[in-house]
Amino acid sequence: MEATDVWALASTALVLIMTPGLALFYGGLVRVRSVVNMMLFSVSAMGVVGVLWILIGYSMSYFADGESGFAGSPFKDFGLVNTDPASFIGVGFGAVFAMITTALISGAIADRVGLGSWVLFSGVWATLVYFPVAAWVWGGGWIMQLGTWLGTPDVIDLAGGTAIHINAGAAALALAIVVGKRRNFAPGSHKPHSIPLVTIGAALLWFGWIGFNAGLATEIGEAGLILVNTLAAPAAGIIGWIITDVARGKKPGVVGASSGAIAGLVAITPAAANLSPLWALLLGLIAGAACAVAIDLKYRLGYDDSLDVVGLHLVAGVIGTLYLGFFAFEDGLFTGGNGGLLLVQAISVVGVATYSFVVSMIIARVVKALTGLRVPREVEEAGIDTFAHGEEAYDYLPDASAARQPVPVGGAR
Amino acid sequence: MEATDVWALASTALVLIMTPGLALFYGGLVRVRSVVNMMLFSVSAMGVVGVLWILIGYSMSYFADGESGFAGSPFKDFGLVNTDPASFIGVGFGAVFAMITTALISGAIADRVGLGSWVLFSGVWATLVYFPVAAWVWGGGWIMQLGTWLGTPDVIDLAGGTAIHINAGAAALALAIVVGKRRNFAPGSHKPHSIPLVTIGAALLWFGWIGFNAGLATEIGEAGLILVNTLAAPAAGIIGWIITDVARGKKPGVVGASSGAIAGLVAITPAAANLSPLWALLLGLIAGAACAVAIDLKYRLGYDDSLDVVGLHLVAGVIGTLYLGFFAFEDGLFTGGNGGLLLVQAISVVGVATYSFVVSMIIARVVKALTGLRVPREVEEAGIDTFAHGEEAYDYLPDASAARQPVPVGGAR
Amino acid sequence: MEATDVWALASTALVLIMTPGLALFYGGLVRVRSVVNMMLFSVSAMGVVGVLWILIGYSMSYFADGESGFAGSPFKDFGLVNTDPASFIGVGFGAVFAMITTALISGAIADRVGLGSWVLFSGVWATLVYFPVAAWVWGGGWIMQLGTWLGTPDVIDLAGGTAIHINAGAAALALAIVVGKRRNFAPGSHKPHSIPLVTIGAALLWFGWIGFNAGLATEIGEAGLILVNTLAAPAAGIIGWIITDVARGKKPGVVGASSGAIAGLVAITPAAANLSPLWALLLGLIAGAACAVAIDLKYRLGYDDSLDVVGLHLVAGVIGTLYLGFFAFEDGLFTGGNGGLLLVQAISVVGVATYSFVVSMIIARVVKALTGLRVPREVEEAGIDTFAHGEEAYDYLPDASAARQPVPVGGAR
Repeated sequence: MEATDVWALASTALVLIMTPGLALFYGGLVRVRSVVNMMLFSVSAMGVVGVLWILIGYSMSYFADGESGFAGSPFKDFGLVNTDPASFIGVGFGAVFAMITTALISGAIADRVGLGSWVLFSGVWATLVYFPVAAWVWGGGWIMQLGTWLGTPDVIDLAGGTAIHINAGAAALALAIVVGKRRNFAPGSHKPHSIPLVTIGAALLWFGWIGFNAGLATEIGEAGLILVNTLAAPAAGIIGWIITDVARGKKPGVVGASSGAIAGLVAITPAAANLSPLWALLLGLIAGAACAVAIDLKYRLGYDDSLDVVGLHLVAGVIGTLYLGFFAFEDGLFTGGNGGLLLVQAISVVGVATYSFVVSMIIARVVKALTGLRVPREVEEAGIDTFAHGEEAYDYLPDASAARQPVPVGGAR
Repeated sequence: MEATDVWALASTALVLIMTPGLALFYGGLVRVRSVVNMMLFSVSAMGVVGVLWILIGYSMSYFADGESGFAGSPFKDFGLVNTDPASFIGVGFGAVFAMITTALISGAIADRVGLGSWVLFSGVWATLVYFPVAAWVWGGGWIMQLGTWLGTPDVIDLAGGTAIHINAGAAALALAIVVGKRRNFAPGSHKPHSIPLVTIGAALLWFGWIGFNAGLATEIGEAGLILVNTLAAPAAGIIGWIITDVARGKKPGVVGASSGAIAGLVAITPAAANLSPLWALLLGLIAGAACAVAIDLKYRLGYDDSLDVVGLHLVAGVIGTLYLGFFAFEDGLFTGGNGGLLLVQAISVVGVATYSFVVSMIIARVVKALTGLRVPREVEEAGIDTFAHGEEAYDYLPDASAARQPVPVGGAR
Repeated sequence: MEATDVWALASTALVLIMTPGLALFYGGLVRVRSVVNMMLFSVSAMGVVGVLWILIGYSMSYFADGESGFAGSPFKDFGLVNTDPASFIGVGFGAVFAMITTALISGAIADRVGLGSWVLFSGVWATLVYFPVAAWVWGGGWIMQLGTWLGTPDVIDLAGGTAIHINAGAAALALAIVVGKRRNFAPGSHKPHSIPLVTIGAALLWFGWIGFNAGLATEIGEAGLILVNTLAAPAAGIIGWIITDVARGKKPGVVGASSGAIAGLVAITPAAANLSPLWALLLGLIAGAACAVAIDLKYRLGYDDSLDVVGLHLVAGVIGTLYLGFFAFEDGLFTGGNGGLLLVQAISVVGVATYSFVVSMIIARVVKALTGLRVPREVEEAGIDTFAHGEEAYDYLPDASAARQPVPVGGAR
């Protein structure tokens, strides 16, 4: 093995733990009665998408010589039967990207969707949306060719501003709309049940993001730049979010600080190899501040994106992708370019967001027709963990049934 | 350093975190009154086995030229005094394997054994069982030589189907039998106290398993294959377990999904370098489904393997080790071989399981004679954490003493 | 990239997760009403120090050719504008060291300091204390030159016995003195609110410490030695702490075992490349035992170092740094040397401890004059999380207001 193979291997482990990290981040943000349901959505995505990736996903995610169109053929590498083992590290690295992207969507539908509906949605979504879009952005598809067609610089998306974050964010918006609001949806109505769990999740996400952004770097300068930017942007994102909260009269907390780090990480994802560290700091600051405001949009616009997949991933993904049009080395509008890069960045944003939103909405409607998508009202009200999963997040808590009778806590256990 | 040295270093860190990961996985699965006790068994194993490994374990775990018999001599590398530092990365990698293997056993004896008894058992077990068996399987011992003796292919055990999982699982069975059942042992009597803790633990286990299986790979194709299979089998294991649960009328939950991933990981441990990804998917599916059924055996057979070390590690370890006899590249019965591999795989399974079970039972009986092994009945009933460790997992919970008087919760804090 | 670059990259990720690990370790140790505040101190340090490092910290942390004096100039690499990207991996590795060192201090002031005061203190401290001291110890400053000046061997501080642990520990002592005691400060008055959280934090710390100590190793023998010692010392530290606790009539618990591991890790930090494994075991044992006793000093001496930053990091940092004077390869007093190494080790200990203590005290007093430093008495009594951060660690707990009325738990949710 070469050194870069070892780094790709290690990076695959780093990205692998992001999906359970997300399970914990999301799990901490929901109310105590929906923790199992929420975490199970991420864990099941590791199962479903992991298997699909090996069967058809890797094959669909790139265009071989002579292939063109919607996505790579699912047959050429079906089950990796005819695939050269020398490319297997890359297959593994791609698998963990597919898992986390799909799992990201689930934050939009906390508290109210059954596991079967989610498994159906997530499997179809990975197949019809993620695998093709990955092929467009990284596998030789139309987004990669846009610069050549238009005579502009090529689209820059290092690790998934479009393919991961805009993609998942647009899907989350569509799915949230189809699923509908939780019954008591209103500002402040759903406080995170466990801040330490949110912290653990965010920690694993940042940790894994080093591999996420830098995993395929081959040159020392490039790897170092990506590393520094993947530290700079989230650090500034923390500050941007907290300052914005304080300026708006909110008290500074861990959920905001963690969200600010993630906003910075999302924004730097497409851009980490193409910005100098000072511009990365500014990007993180902007993303943190913007997302701190953006997460309140859902109350105005009336969609229940429960855990702010749109407000974090779609918004910061768009910011980071377009920001490159202004500040990317050489080709940014303010850094020597002529606007050509900005144009193709914007086209890729609109292209991926539109495709993902429309197809996700169709998939969601079909799943709704098949399964109902949403759990019955009484299950949602009584608590989805108990009724749909037969598990409660914590077994040492006072029993809700104690409310009916004035029994002291110790006796209710 | 070469690239492969860096990968072994990184893998040692990955495997290191598996033992605290196990502490959290086991800690989440027990009731709230035994969390400290349960976690302390893993943490203390890191201490005791870590020190023993450096003193004598590494030296015992391989046969130097001219050595033969029960295990390597503990004197040749005693305290690493005469050991070439060029082999120290390997020493570290071996240390973390010894820690996790020993810690695995502790899941069988939740709620009812004192720390001193466990420390005594774990130290003796590592010395008399783990170090020798590691020498048999990887250090030039009889299992490695079986193929040569019998004129068959060599036994395949990449990362410890026999040396780790069957070994720990058989020891767990012996120890559970000697320790005896918890008082109220019955299906459903012991719900996990914290599902998020179980999730964190399982996440760290899968994460670390990448290094566990692939840490010594040197060729890019081999490393890639191991990586893909270490993603494929647990992904399929999740699906296998959940489908089995649903088919049996159980509701799908996080404990099952996490256990399914672990079943897949255990099964692929011996096999990750010798199966194509499609066969790895099938193996994960089988292991997940089989273990979902196997964990109920303890109620029929009447041993209280509290956290299913037998049902997960012994069962999936046997499945994975024997599966190679059918599907391993070239030598599997269904993939070109003649049954010779299946024979030696079966011999290694029986050999390790028998040795570990018998010697573990003897050690357990000796420890029982010395310390009683089990805590007094009143400590077990009142809660081992409070009485044996002076610590409670959570200090913010309603006090159990509140049960005695009808005082409201807030006042009981 | 070379293999060593990959290892430095991976090590940066490992060290990155130590700061959230510390947030969880500290967060678990405090009472439930201060968890958000405590964790936010570490998270905000990642933001503030991360940004400062890129702007001026890296530049201040080493002396370029011709530079001398207090610290490196902040202008030569300001914002990394004129910095060679080939050194960016090193910049990232340094960034995560700066984060964790600053965050360490915060354990001394649990429950009673506002975020604004901490942000101000931490930013100034990093600038005036950490960046210069790092330049002294690793960047060509006076501590590195001490051996040449005095005709002795050079000071040995592999990964920060002085620059990290003594530095943070002395600052924590100064800050604790200026901030003053919590109202009900007394032995046993503040039990950890969550042992599992402490375990998670300690696990991430040990895990990351592999990269912390070994991240810059380039030779296989050196890397292996550091690895083995970074396993040996904490393993022995666990045993040393537990034996000491039991010998003193305390019950063995997870907090002690985790603290013992950390004591061993701190002590081996300066020494991991210069001790044979047997001496590393002894060092860990001593550090674990000594710190188990040292953490009670605060009650006798009357400073409220709430989470024992002094008792762990200062004490074990001093032990490890001086121990080298006796047992380091070749130059230790008992290993062939003449006391020259012990002399310069002692000078570096006194130099860093004195500087950090004095300057930290000045900074703390200035911040106190500006912000008051400590939150109002009523906020401290009512719970800093609710009143200063608008967040409570857990939203599913019985409401404290229930204490005022005899309402059963279920009804109070």
